[in-house]
Amino acid sequence: MGTTFQAYAASARGAQLQPFEFDPGPLRDDQVEIAVAYCGVCHSDLSMWHNEWGITKYPFVPGHEVAGRVAAVGAQVRGVKIGQRVGLGWYAGSCMACPQCLSGNHNLCPAAEATIVERHGGFANHVRCHWAWAVPLPEALDAEKSSPLFCGGITVFNPLLQCGVQPTDRAGVIGIGGLGHLALQFLNKWGCEVTGFSSSDSKRDEAVKFGAHHVVNSRDAAQLQKIAGSLNFILSTVNAPLPWEAFLGCLAPKGRLHIVGAVLEPIPVTAFSLIGGQKTLSGTPLGSPFNTARMLEFSARHGIAPVVEVFPMSKVNEALEHLRAGRARYRIVLRNDFA
Amino acid sequence: MGTTFQAYAASARGAQLQPFEFDPGPLRDDQVEIAVAYCGVCHSDLSMWHNEWGITKYPFVPGHEVAGRVAAVGAQVRGVKIGQRVGLGWYAGSCMACPQCLSGNHNLCPAAEATIVERHGGFANHVRCHWAWAVPLPEALDAEKSSPLFCGGITVFNPLLQCGVQPTDRAGVIGIGGLGHLALQFLNKWGCEVTGFSSSDSKRDEAVKFGAHHVVNSRDAAQLQKIAGSLNFILSTVNAPLPWEAFLGCLAPKGRLHIVGAVLEPIPVTAFSLIGGQKTLSGTPLGSPFNTARMLEFSARHGIAPVVEVFPMSKVNEALEHLRAGRARYRIVLRNDFA
Repeated sequence: MGTTFQAYAASARGAQLQPFEFDPGPLRDDQVEIAVAYCGVCHSDLSMWHNEWGITKYPFVPGHEVAGRVAAVGAQVRGVKIGQRVGLGWYAGSCMACPQCLSGNHNLCPAAEATIVERHGGFANHVRCHWAWAVPLPEALDAEKSSPLFCGGITVFNPLLQCGVQPTDRAGVIGIGGLGHLALQFLNKWGCEVTGFSSSDSKRDEAVKFGAHHVVNSRDAAQLQKIAGSLNFILSTVNAPLPWEAFLGCLAPKGRLHIVGAVLEPIPVTAFSLIGGQKTLSGTPLGSPFNTARMLEFSARHGIAPVVEVFPMSKVNEALEHLRAGRARYRIVLRNDFA
Repeated sequence: MGTTFQAYAASARGAQLQPFEFDPGPLRDDQVEIAVAYCGVCHSDLSMWHNEWGITKYPFVPGHEVAGRVAAVGAQVRGVKIGQRVGLGWYAGSCMACPQCLSGNHNLCPAAEATIVERHGGFANHVRCHWAWAVPLPEALDAEKSSPLFCGGITVFNPLLQCGVQPTDRAGVIGIGGLGHLALQFLNKWGCEVTGFSSSDSKRDEAVKFGAHHVVNSRDAAQLQKIAGSLNFILSTVNAPLPWEAFLGCLAPKGRLHIVGAVLEPIPVTAFSLIGGQKTLSGTPLGSPFNTARMLEFSARHGIAPVVEVFPMSKVNEALEHLRAGRARYRIVLRNDFA
């Protein structure tokens, strides 16, 4: 007598998503089952859908920005209760016993389980995860708007913690999209002087609304040259090649260029561009459950939220096409409308 | 009635060094004049001699690893006195007033003066510098052996401070040469578990003597693979292209690959190799006067010194050829034998 989950799945690489039912098997003792209310749509869903990283299994159920309520808990679950509002992001589990987990860096656990890799994700009425990764959603946060925080949000918030960004810093954000529009908000409330970099001037006014004090056209070499040596921290959220040396040149001494956009082409860095001004190039994946909770608290305190476009989950293919075409302003959220 | 300095200079790119006399002009109020006792020979002297960085002016007097005594001081000199033993490295001055100087990062001063750029260096009987850069040599340190600390030493010691290397870390050093053999000593006394990477097995025993607990052949992919994910910090001292992705792969989560070797070819880094394990690529130039003093104190406390081969300064061309040919074991020092 199995349970049945309803979902949307692609049967093959890039195939349109279709309604899909599956038996998730028994709930593990350490697992939480979440009744999905909303699920954000992330660029990584597109990459996985098209197997760009070579790790996708079909049928493939995307979705790793879940907000919902705990519907069931295994016998050994800690920290969350049935009925509680929680969110789930890219990671759905970690071993809890390795040095990374024991040092609070669960997102760096070599055995971390990704929500949509070799298991089914949040474009569904239910999804499961290890209890540590079902992070409670503070009362003050709206479920509809909060689901993108669990992947997009923590991806750009965690670097501020990991890289030791100071409120006195001048910070830049490359790309004013799903990630970038959140990074601008976080950095503004973090106390920084914030520069937004966009490849088009069309997002200038909105970048300012999100918290940018300055907006620079990243395709204009003269504009990049003009701010050479001025920024302490630049966060790159885009997944396309950039004029990397020019951005390193925008950094002040001891400055850091931090990568969260999964650009596939290698970044060619010269030793001199790092050595001369003591510069750093680095990257981070998502964040730990503890730091996700810190992000949610910070968001609630400062009224930070993504700007979302909401589609019923039954229109998932339209939503995916909207994102693929670059039309999302700024994050797409699917609302569960399973019968 | 001018002063005359005696030196060895190249009249053109790569030309043999010849005896050369010049009038250094009046001593500035903020300057110290050092009577050179010893001057180390650094790879950067070779690069500048051959104008590899496009900034050399001829006649060119190399030399930026000076140990000697203060022979004269300008009216506003602070901190050092006539007769005092001091050393001088790559930098001979900084503006003392910019944010970098005021924050103790004089080596990052945009107006920093390099000892052998557009001025004459330490292959001479006298050399001058701003008082802040004439760093006192502790009693316990031998002048002959200490001159290489002022460039080679601080180049590999400063990263331990800047990168926050912990005594509990596992650290690697790429290249067992003039820089690397000092880095192994520093890291061993820093408390780390130390791995030396060498492209040849011939330096294995000496690497162990310098402080390496393990030695890995950097040309053996299987050996690199075997230690994948294990090191917290890797310092690259070589100026040739390396299997960069393999070295990034040797890093533990949150690990850092730090570059002090001035390799000219860009380092192609993939975003995924940084993001997945939260890894960092960075570089530093030399170190500040304060941190140079800390290095000297640490060296005195722990008996750290370069292994040097001493040539009389009159044999400077033989010394340069010895270094160029890769035969230096491990740092060459010229002894002032001007009449």
